[in-house]
Amino acid sequence: MTVLRNIAQLATCPATNPQQDAGIIENAALAFANGEIAWVGPENQLPKRHSGEESFDCRQQLVIPGLIDCHTHLCFGGWRDDEFDLRLRGHRYEDIAAAGGGIRSTVSATRSATIQQLSRKALQALAGMLELGVTTIECKSGYGLEADSELKQLEVYRKLDAQQPVDLIRTFLGAHMVPDEFQNCRDDYVRLLCDTLIPMVSAQNLAEFCDVFVDENAFSIPEARQILTAAKRAGLGLKVHADQLSNGGGAQFAAEMGAISAEHLEHATESGIQAMADAGTVAVSLPLASLYLRVPYIAARDMLEAGMKVAVATDFNPGSAPSYHLPLAMTLACINQQMTPQEVLVGATTVAARAICAEQRIGSLLPGFTADITVIDSPSVNQWLYHFRANACSGVVKSGQWVKAFAPQTAPFLR
Amino acid sequence: MTVLRNIAQLATCPATNPQQDAGIIENAALAFANGEIAWVGPENQLPKRHSGEESFDCRQQLVIPGLIDCHTHLCFGGWRDDEFDLRLRGHRYEDIAAAGGGIRSTVSATRSATIQQLSRKALQALAGMLELGVTTIECKSGYGLEADSELKQLEVYRKLDAQQPVDLIRTFLGAHMVPDEFQNCRDDYVRLLCDTLIPMVSAQNLAEFCDVFVDENAFSIPEARQILTAAKRAGLGLKVHADQLSNGGGAQFAAEMGAISAEHLEHATESGIQAMADAGTVAVSLPLASLYLRVPYIAARDMLEAGMKVAVATDFNPGSAPSYHLPLAMTLACINQQMTPQEVLVGATTVAARAICAEQRIGSLLPGFTADITVIDSPSVNQWLYHFRANACSGVVKSGQWVKAFAPQTAPFLR
Repeated sequence: MTVLRNIAQLATCPATNPQQDAGIIENAALAFANGEIAWVGPENQLPKRHSGEESFDCRQQLVIPGLIDCHTHLCFGGWRDDEFDLRLRGHRYEDIAAAGGGIRSTVSATRSATIQQLSRKALQALAGMLELGVTTIECKSGYGLEADSELKQLEVYRKLDAQQPVDLIRTFLGAHMVPDEFQNCRDDYVRLLCDTLIPMVSAQNLAEFCDVFVDENAFSIPEARQILTAAKRAGLGLKVHADQLSNGGGAQFAAEMGAISAEHLEHATESGIQAMADAGTVAVSLPLASLYLRVPYIAARDMLEAGMKVAVATDFNPGSAPSYHLPLAMTLACINQQMTPQEVLVGATTVAARAICAEQRIGSLLPGFTADITVIDSPSVNQWLYHFRANACSGVVKSGQWVKAFAPQTAPFLR
Repeated sequence: MTVLRNIAQLATCPATNPQQDAGIIENAALAFANGEIAWVGPENQLPKRHSGEESFDCRQQLVIPGLIDCHTHLCFGGWRDDEFDLRLRGHRYEDIAAAGGGIRSTVSATRSATIQQLSRKALQALAGMLELGVTTIECKSGYGLEADSELKQLEVYRKLDAQQPVDLIRTFLGAHMVPDEFQNCRDDYVRLLCDTLIPMVSAQNLAEFCDVFVDENAFSIPEARQILTAAKRAGLGLKVHADQLSNGGGAQFAAEMGAISAEHLEHATESGIQAMADAGTVAVSLPLASLYLRVPYIAARDMLEAGMKVAVATDFNPGSAPSYHLPLAMTLACINQQMTPQEVLVGATTVAARAICAEQRIGSLLPGFTADITVIDSPSVNQWLYHFRANACSGVVKSGQWVKAFAPQTAPFLR
C-alpha cells in the first residue's frame, strides 16, 4: 500500500459526472495497492489502517488521473520541418504536395523506414509524453497505405507497448488517404482494406479500433461506410476523422455508424452535433491541429450544451500537429474552445478513456480503477492550465509503480 | 578557452543582417574565453591553436545566442487563475474588474507583498526562464502605481539581477494605468510621475527605460508625451505600449518621440507602421498576449516589408500572458505572425537586444560579443520551432560560464 498525502487538490474525474465537474477534493489523500486505487478522500478522513503505510508528501500539489492522449499518429518516418518554413514563406500546401511534400513525403519515409528505426523514434516521443504525465495513448497507423507498411506501424506499437510504461491503444487507419498507386482505381484500395487488411488486422489482434478519414481529399461517405462495416464485422471499434477541412456530413455518419468517437469536427454543423449527441458519440477535439493549420477551433460549447462529451487530444503527427504536448493542447482548449479547466481535464482523462472504450478501467481516481496517477506542481486545476509552463508534472504512477520519479520542487509553488 | 564542436547548425544572428537571415553556419564550431566569443565558423576551419582546448561535443545539436525576452512584467503579487476560469464561464472582464479583479487585484497584491515575497516568487520564474535558454530579460514595474510600491518592484529587480545568472534590464512603468486613488485627479498622477518618480528612478539608477501604456483606459497621447518628455530629460530610454486594444495613434507617437521600441501594436495602422519604420522603432510582438486574450496577432509581415525589425517576447504577466515560455511565443510567432523560424530567432536575439539598446554586446554569436550561448536539442532552427516540445534546451552559457549544465540527450534527435 502506498499513500499520497497533503494534496492541495485531487481531481477524481468520475465518468458519471457531467463534464464540468471534475470531482475535486481539497486537502486530499489517496491510497493505492496492487496496481489499483484503494482509497481516496479528504486527508482528515484517511482510514487509520493506512496511517502506517509508505507515504509521499505531495506538498500541496495537484493530483489527477494519468493523462490520456486519445488521438495520435505516433509512428511516422521523417519530419516536415522544411515544409513548415516553406509555408511561412508563402508556398501553398498544394504546390508543396505536388513537389512530393505533404503527407506523401511522410508515407514515403514511413514505407522506407525499418521497424527498428520507427520504434526508436517513437520511443523518444513516448518518453517525452510520459514526462508530461501521459500514461495512455491511442495511436494510429495510416502512413503505410499498403499491407506491409500498415502492419509495420501496428507492429511498432505492439513492441513499444511492451517496452515502456505508457499504454498504447492501437487504431488501424489504412483509410487515411488513397495512396498514389490507387488514384485511378480507388475502389480497389477500398476492397483491399475491407477484404484483406481489416480482417488481417483483426485476426492478428493488431488493433482495437478502425478509423477512416471522411473528406473530399480522402474517402467519401459511401466508401467510409463500406470500410467501417467491414471493421464492425471484424470486431473492431469504430472511429471517424470527420468534418475537419469542410462539412461533409462526417458527424452524422459517425453517429449513424455507432462510432465510439468522431475526431476533429472543426466544421461540424448543428444537426451533426445533435446526431452525435443522440448517439452518444464522443467528440475528440484537437486544438494543436487548429493552431498549426490556422483553422477554426471546434465548437465545444455547442457540443457540451447538446449533451456531448468532448475529449482533448494532441493529434501528434509530422504535418498538422508536430507536438505531443498534451498540456499545451489543454490550455489551448480552455482559451480557444472556451472550455473551463475542469471540463478540459475531464476531457483528457475519463472522456478520453471513453473514446478508447476504457472508462471503466482508467481515467478516474476512484477505488478499483487502475492506479495511473499524475502529480502536478500546481495548487489547482485552474492554476495549472492558466499558467502555461514547460512541464509542470512532478511525478507519475503507472499501474501502481512510480514511472516518473516523484520529485516535488524544493520550493512550494508561490502565490 | 572553451570550444563547442560538432554543431549541426549555429545561428550567429548578426545585427547587420536583414531579419530573415539568421547567419546560419552548418557543421560549426565556436570558441569562447574570458566571457566573450573568441571564434566562430565551420568546424573544419577551426584554428589549430584551439584544438587542444577544453571542448564539448554538441552531437549535431543547434547553437544559438542566449535568448532575450525583451518584454516582461516579472514582478507581481498574486495570480489571476480564478479569473481565467470565470472568463471561460462567460463572465465579462468589466464585471470581474468591477468586483475587484483584473489588474486592480494585481496592484493590490503587489502593494501588500514584501520585497522578500516578491523576490522569491520572481526567482522561480527566472529559474524557469533560464531552463528554457533565456539569458537576459527586460522587466517592468507598473503594479505598484505609487512611489513605494513602484520602487519596491525595481528594487526586487536590482536584487535578483545580482542573485542569479539571467541579466535583468529594468523599465519603469509607473504609467501602466491611473491608480484608483487618482481617478478623479489624473493630472496629479501624471505630475507625480514626471516631477517625482521619474527623476527619483533616474537619480537612484533603478531603471534604464521608461514605458507608458497609451490606451483609452490608460494614458492619452498628450499625457504620454509629458511622461516620456520627463523620462528623456532624466536620461531614460523610451518605450511605448501602443495600439494594443484599439488604434490610438500609439505607433506614430512612439516614432515621434524617438522611442527605441513600441510594444504590442496589434492594431497599428499602415501609417503608424511607416512612421515607425522611418524612425527605426523596433516593434515588440507579444504572441502570448494575443493567444490568451484572443485578439489579433501583430501584422509582422507588413512591418518587416516596411523595413522594421520585429522582436518576439512573452509579455509574462498574471493577466493577459501568464506564461514565460519564450519558445512557445516564438512558435506562435511563426504560425500566427507568419514569420519564418529564422526571422523569429533573430527577433528573440539581436532584435530583442536592440529593443533594450544592447545589440552591440549581446544577441549575436560573433567574436567580441558576450558569451551568452544556448544549446538546443534539435538539428536546426526550423525543426526546433516546428516541433514544439516542453523544453528543448540542453545547456546554457552565460558570460562564459555554464549556468545550465550541458546535458545533450543520450540519444541523438531522430529524423
